[in-house]
Amino acid sequence: MSVKKDENIVWHETSVCRRDREKLLGHRSVNLWLTGLSGSGKSTLAHAAARRLFDLRCQAYVFDGDNVRHGLCADLGFSIEDRHENIRRIAQVVNLFLDAGVISLAAFISPMRTDRKMVRDFLGKADFLEVYCKCPLEVCEQRDVKGLYKKAREGKIKNYTGISSPYEEPVNPDLVLDTANATIESGVEAIIELLVARKIIGI
Amino acid sequence: MSVKKDENIVWHETSVCRRDREKLLGHRSVNLWLTGLSGSGKSTLAHAAARRLFDLRCQAYVFDGDNVRHGLCADLGFSIEDRHENIRRIAQVVNLFLDAGVISLAAFISPMRTDRKMVRDFLGKADFLEVYCKCPLEVCEQRDVKGLYKKAREGKIKNYTGISSPYEEPVNPDLVLDTANATIESGVEAIIELLVARKIIGI
Repeated sequence: MSVKKDENIVWHETSVCRRDREKLLGHRSVNLWLTGLSGSGKSTLAHAAARRLFDLRCQAYVFDGDNVRHGLCADLGFSIEDRHENIRRIAQVVNLFLDAGVISLAAFISPMRTDRKMVRDFLGKADFLEVYCKCPLEVCEQRDVKGLYKKAREGKIKNYTGISSPYEEPVNPDLVLDTANATIESGVEAIIELLVARKIIGI
Repeated sequence: MSVKKDENIVWHETSVCRRDREKLLGHRSVNLWLTGLSGSGKSTLAHAAARRLFDLRCQAYVFDGDNVRHGLCADLGFSIEDRHENIRRIAQVVNLFLDAGVISLAAFISPMRTDRKMVRDFLGKADFLEVYCKCPLEVCEQRDVKGLYKKAREGKIKNYTGISSPYEEPVNPDLVLDTANATIESGVEAIIELLVARKIIGI
């Protein structure tokens, strides 16, 4: 490949940028960050919203424990340092998806305000929409889909958010969903309305 | 969100899968892994091919040192362990992009056969196309775009691939590009032909 320096620069100038991709896809990219207690419905909502976005022909992708904790972050535990590094890596991957023009939905307990602020500061305010899945601990504990609250109460799991480790509610989230009482459909609609209001998608 | 267990299962069944996304985008996803010495033109070729794919209305994304080493892997150095962890994380991110339906072009020296084999084994043979950017050390060293070969020869950089650290040529790559003599355009064409032959894209 006889690359003269000038040629090289030309090629770099013709690189595809985020705005190009967004134009091709017909929508802007953004990160929706779903935070809340375990069992508050973050992942379910994220997948339902991704389905709805797909039906609207938008590119959307869900990150949750299933595809991150067992993969990219499989080497990390649940100490404060490891939780922090976990969120840092997710923020980096989300940033790559933003650049690729994809709407990402990140569903993580992410109990610490400082960690969520780190993500927002890194991505930039316009590209980070905080969605608080608000559900009383009692309801989450009653659902106990994975049986982890029981184990946490029995002391078999340490540092479990809501039981033996704090959850810090968002101060000024972009959206609050009452995931104890409202239906999934209404939650999905609220997310779509938010995306329309912020001019990420047009429907 | 009154999630009865059955409802929950229904929502998960309606999750969007890779094949759905590929259908919407009009092409399959795959990973092109560009390996070769520093200065062999991996990144330039990857960006040029991504541009060509974009013009064909395909979703493609480039991973290289610029957007990985300074971000997701900013905590890693160049020891054997760190290089290995670097490749592991890239493989994980590439896997997420595969799942998202995007064609990824990963441009990394990746000098060790075992590391490239790790990526191939992880992604699966059909989803990993190894592209060897073949360029004699003398040519790469003469280009020395970043001035790093000079520093490596002076001993100011240790473990520099090709100088003080080995590069293991691919044994049976999916594509070999003569990046010392051929033009960028011909390299891009060869990549596009490969994608057509493997039925990733149809043009």
